[in-house]
Amino acid sequence: MKFGIAVFPSKKLQDLANSYRKRYDPHYSLIPPHLTLKEPFDATDEEINKIAKKIEGIAKDAEPFTLRAYKISSFQPVNNVIYMKVDSVPELINLYQSLHNEEFGVKSQYSFVPHITIAQKLSNDEHSDVYGSLRMAGVDHEETVDRFHLLYQLENGSWTVYETYRLGGGDS
Amino acid sequence: MKFGIAVFPSKKLQDLANSYRKRYDPHYSLIPPHLTLKEPFDATDEEINKIAKKIEGIAKDAEPFTLRAYKISSFQPVNNVIYMKVDSVPELINLYQSLHNEEFGVKSQYSFVPHITIAQKLSNDEHSDVYGSLRMAGVDHEETVDRFHLLYQLENGSWTVYETYRLGGGDS
Repeated sequence: MKFGIAVFPSKKLQDLANSYRKRYDPHYSLIPPHLTLKEPFDATDEEINKIAKKIEGIAKDAEPFTLRAYKISSFQPVNNVIYMKVDSVPELINLYQSLHNEEFGVKSQYSFVPHITIAQKLSNDEHSDVYGSLRMAGVDHEETVDRFHLLYQLENGSWTVYETYRLGGGDS
Repeated sequence: MKFGIAVFPSKKLQDLANSYRKRYDPHYSLIPPHLTLKEPFDATDEEINKIAKKIEGIAKDAEPFTLRAYKISSFQPVNNVIYMKVDSVPELINLYQSLHNEEFGVKSQYSFVPHITIAQKLSNDEHSDVYGSLRMAGVDHEETVDRFHLLYQLENGSWTVYETYRLGGGDS
């Protein structure tokens, strides 16, 4: 089974992201707008129970962080993904690193650039058009994140939440 | 903001439900296959924090239950919803009742028929065709449910998980 770890930002930021994703992101209907903390990885039912426990420990040792989305950027020329760039605050970097230590054994393909994808799988011409207009629109949003989720993927490509983790292990 | 409470069954049962929902349920892309524990209700950010705490208490006092989907049924003539009928085991009924006591102040429109919707918003003719073939296909599935989720709805009608609750407050 395929698992992943992500933060869902507030409804406000998700609604904004979806206003773009609806037109420019073919994953629009597969998962809500999110900040990926760990790229999809394979695990059996037995393995995921152990992993879920590890993540619980990591979440308790981590801290809530300020998610500041401050500009629209693109991964071009690596790929045509356009995203809201999120401030690399130490709490977020630490959380990412804890979720990528040798215990997990899964190295990320890319270095960590915190982001919320709003457009992908565009042709080069589309990318150039859409990026121009989204960059002009910009983004300026700040909120506190106190939780993240472990998800698994269904056969149709969509994602279901398996577990919710509180940062710092705190109550609501 | 609109909130709801639901159980997501295992990937296996979700994949089966989605094989029907894809064709017959316009909510297919808005939420994964689920068993509704509480119909959508309105709450402010402040209210939901109190409600989330109440649910935490309810979850701790509840018990994991056996989800047995044993036949395909329909709510006709009330509406044209076709669903997998889920066994009304006492643990599930108790959980439902705890989530509908006077503290919540939101009465359900219907009496509780545990189910997983696989088709809706069909015309009468479609309903009759689809119901005939799905009833023949049937369903026979059993699994243990140890968690449920509090969700909120985005402007596009899709649902995002806010919190995960363990039944009995147990670990994985």
